[in-house]
Amino acid sequence: MKLRIVVTLKNGVLDPQGKAIQHALGSLGFDGVADARVGKLIELDVADDTSDEAIDQMCRKLLANTVIENYRVERQDSVA
Amino acid sequence: MKLRIVVTLKNGVLDPQGKAIQHALGSLGFDGVADARVGKLIELDVADDTSDEAIDQMCRKLLANTVIENYRVERQDSVA
Repeated sequence: MKLRIVVTLKNGVLDPQGKAIQHALGSLGFDGVADARVGKLIELDVADDTSDEAIDQMCRKLLANTVIENYRVERQDSVA
Repeated sequence: MKLRIVVTLKNGVLDPQGKAIQHALGSLGFDGVADARVGKLIELDVADDTSDEAIDQMCRKLLANTVIENYRVERQDSVA
């Protein structure tokens, strides 16, 4: 079973990498970039009988820092 | 206009960060993780009149290294 875990910074958490991208795009002549935020995408191939509970635990224990990050689990077959 | 740029490593390119995640999940007792790959997710807020051409150029010039990475542009309103 293929999963996509999307980890993004919570609103209000400073994102220097995003700011750097925003400024770099401006320097390259791309105007009108109002904001840029950077997150992580983790693609996992797990056993088909893996429970939702286990997947949630993986995210909480390792993949996301829930103090500053949100995470979302997308099943690959539900993604275009 | 909100965009989501998904940047992933091409198949065949080694992904040490993904391997580290795979092994760490195993050490934590999550069995059956066959593979893990890590990518980037860049959320951009651009002017509504930004052309597809300009978005493509942003990806090629700054956001993705097209030698080793693929990128995909998703319009936020088409994402659940």
